[in-house]
Parts: sequence; C-alpha cells; structure tokens
Amino acid sequence: MCELLGMSASVPTDICFSFAGLMRRGGDTGPHEDGWGIAFYEGKGYRAFHDPGASADSEIARFVQSYSIKSNNVLCHIRKANRGKVSLENTHPFARELWGQTWSFAHNGQLKGVKKLTLKHYNPVGTTDSEHAFCWLLGELREHFPRPPGRQRALWQFIQEKTETLSELGIFNMLMSDGRSLYTHCSTKLSWLTRQAPFGNAQLIDADMTVDFADHTQANDVVTVIATQPLTSNEQWQAMDEGEFSVFQQGQRVWPRQNKNNSAGK
Amino acid sequence: MCELLGMSASVPTDICFSFAGLMRRGGDTGPHEDGWGIAFYEGKGYRAFHDPGASADSEIARFVQSYSIKSNNVLCHIRKANRGKVSLENTHPFARELWGQTWSFAHNGQLKGVKKLTLKHYNPVGTTDSEHAFCWLLGELREHFPRPPGRQRALWQFIQEKTETLSELGIFNMLMSDGRSLYTHCSTKLSWLTRQAPFGNAQLIDADMTVDFADHTQANDVVTVIATQPLTSNEQWQAMDEGEFSVFQQGQRVWPRQNKNNSAGK
Repeated sequence: MCELLGMSASVPTDICFSFAGLMRRGGDTGPHEDGWGIAFYEGKGYRAFHDPGASADSEIARFVQSYSIKSNNVLCHIRKANRGKVSLENTHPFARELWGQTWSFAHNGQLKGVKKLTLKHYNPVGTTDSEHAFCWLLGELREHFPRPPGRQRALWQFIQEKTETLSELGIFNMLMSDGRSLYTHCSTKLSWLTRQAPFGNAQLIDADMTVDFADHTQANDVVTVIATQPLTSNEQWQAMDEGEFSVFQQGQRVWPRQNKNNSAGK
Repeated sequence: MCELLGMSASVPTDICFSFAGLMRRGGDTGPHEDGWGIAFYEGKGYRAFHDPGASADSEIARFVQSYSIKSNNVLCHIRKANRGKVSLENTHPFARELWGQTWSFAHNGQLKGVKKLTLKHYNPVGTTDSEHAFCWLLGELREHFPRPPGRQRALWQFIQEKTETLSELGIFNMLMSDGRSLYTHCSTKLSWLTRQAPFGNAQLIDADMTVDFADHTQANDVVTVIATQPLTSNEQWQAMDEGEFSVFQQGQRVWPRQNKNNSAGK
C-alpha cells in the first residue's frame, strides 16, 4: 500500500516537517520504494516533483526538503507498486487541466476493473489503475459541468458521488486538488489533524525531529495535514471513516458541514 | 525577448552543459529574469521544473544543473515578461495531455490578437499569449485528429500549418514536444547544431566552461541542440530561416526531409 500526504493551509505554508517524516517511509522506515511525487499549488500556479526511485535515497527529495516551497495546497505520494511498472509516467500525483485550473490526484489502493470505465476527454499516459480512475473522474466532471458550476456545493456533491462509484471497485484512498480545494476520500486509512493557535510542539514518528509551530506561524494561521497514517506521536490525529469524503479549503474542513468530528485535532 | 533551449537525442542524454550556459542569461549575462522552466521526457514520462525567479539566482536551477537528468527530449525557457505578470502559472514550458501523451510547449515572441482565437478542449491556466497559442494549437490538433494519425507526416504537416497561422500574428519562435518528436518554428531567431562522432571540445559563450564530448558519449550517439542564440563559441551553429519549421527525432532532423542545411553543424 502506498502512503499519502496532503496539506491545506490558510496562508502559504511549507510542508518540510511532515515531508521529512513521510520520505523516511519510502525504503527506510516503510517499504514504499517504487517512486514518489509531490505537487504544490502557489496561487493558480502548479509545480510538481517526481522521482521513480525510493524516496529515502532521493536527491530530489532531499532538495525539496531543504528548499522551503510555501503553498496553500500540497499533495504527496510514495508508491509501493502493485499495478503498473515502476517508471516516471506511473509516479503520482497525476495532473490535468480542467476549466483553466490544474487538477492533481494521488491514490492508494487497487480498483478492480477500473479500466472498463469509459474515458472521455482525458487519457492516461502511464498504465496504473490510479491514473485511469483520475482520467475517468475528470472526464465525468467535464461532461457534467462543461463550465465550472456556480455553486461549489454542486461540484463537491458530484465529486463525492464519483468517488463512491470508484470506491465500489476496491480500495480508494484519495487526495485530489484543483488548487482551491483539497478533496479526500477514505476507503481504509486516512487521518487528519488541524493545527491552529495556540500552536505547540510536534514530534515525528519516523525521524528524530521536533518542531515548535509557535516559532513558525502567525496567530491566524490554520493548517490541516492529511496522511495515510499519523506522522506525529504527540498530536491528536483523527481517523477518517470508511467511505468518508471531505473537502478542505484554507486549512479548514468545509465539507461535510456538520460532522461530529469537525473540531477534532484542534 | 525570452530565450529557448531544446534538445533531441538518440540516447538519454543530460543537458547540464548547455543548461549552464543558458541559465547565466537569466539575470546575469542576459536580462531574462522573469522566471524559467525546463521539461524532460524520460520514455513516456515527463517532469518539469519551474521557477518564477531569475535563473541566475535560482536554487532549483543549481539543483537541475548538478543533478544530471538524462532525457531524449528537453525543452527549456527563460523569460523576459512582456505579456502576463511574473508568476508560476505564466512560466513556460506549458504542458497538456493529448492522446495519452504529454505535450509541452515553450515560446518566445509576441502574438497580437492571439486571444481572439477560439479555444477547444484546452484552456490556459495563466494569462500569457504563449499558453493561449499552445491551447489553441493543441485543440486544433485534437479536433482534426481525434486519434493519433497513422502517418507521422500528416501530423507534422498539420502542425506546420498551424504554426504558420500563429506566426502571422507576430513573432513565433517555438519549441514543442510530444515526447517522441521535438517540433520547432523559427520566426526571427533559432539556431541548431548536431553533435555526433567524432566528438570534440565545446566552449560556452556565457561561462568559462569547456567540455570534451568524447569523454561523455558513445560512438553512435547523436544529439541536436536548438537555442535562440548559439551557446558555444567554437562549434558551427546553423541559423534557421524565417518561417522554418522542423521536426527532430532521436537527435536527427527528420523534417523537412531534403534541405540544403540538413548536414550543417555535423
């Protein structure tokens, strides 16, 4: 199984600390040695770094960790290949443009028979189930909404329906972003945590590394981190339920609107 | 005016040497300080590095220069902004997927009224004339060839026609690739050079740097480099003509087929 990491933040924020923990799982504290990738949104701009090698040994990973890119939305994925060979084109996150926005997608799990879903508009470059699922989802979106819907809620509901269709095919833990929102779907394993004032210390599980967020934040900052498994040992992560679909914007969970877990991890 | 650099090679080849020369023009030996980007194809895989800052000061540029990525097709662009603000989304090369291939595009020049061209399928994320031109060109391609044409020549001819339409709007020096071919159009300034056995020394114009390609190549390697202006002082670069459209594959110019310049620079 692969590992996912996402971030949604109210102000451009670097993900160096969480990234440092995750990267150790790519061939060091974890078995996910078949490539990794990370995507950053900066305003409407998008940039991604991909490496088909193990993240624990990756020069690009070391560079990304030391070069603090500040972003409102981040998606990261480290891969343990199950379908599709180890290669650059099979390395998540995948990206496509819809409505003049760059959409990106990372997935863990397996989707039996996903390649029978008919594609419209978007075609995979690689051979993974994941990229096929993403191309299908985005094609459905484009077909249903030739232009971006005026009501965000309509968009979220449509995406939720499609993620439910995909999750019926197997395991579908997903992160997706259009640069404005971060969408998540949990089939089996996804946890999240919102950091906001008063900020405190955090201790990584996978590396001997501690940070005091009070030294790196302003009083109004809100940052949510989403990961396959909790990355820190001394913070209260909230496990998502099976079938749970969420939307994050500016560091806050904005969908589902009223949820008993909505204030968890704060 | 921006600067372009492209490479087409018969075997995966790094572009560190040429890149080192070009990067100096981004705010050091040249005025192109409004961002830069580079795209590499590795098989079907594609990865790009973008930085909206000046290349001469760029940490990412230093990293790319030291981290030798080997590729068959490379596109690089350093920007002097004339239309569209300085931002990540306005930084070339731009990329879109068509027929399950990643197409990428970099341009220098200005295209008056290009935004009146109606877009099909692809929409710009940023605000440059260049990205609009690319989206239009790719939309035309997709409309004309819903599937990839069996005859490559038909594809090349169609692209050539569309580049001619664009060049009527102003200055259109362009590099484009689908991972298999590197397409070029020259309006005003584009030079190229093919390196093959016997390999010799090359001396950069913009930096005190020399390389002996005989130390870095095999006998059968063929590598073509295309740049806005020659990058080396002791090799015979071939200036392209106004309106010249070319296709490079595996380091060789394959279109136009018979051309008096076809053996130049060898």
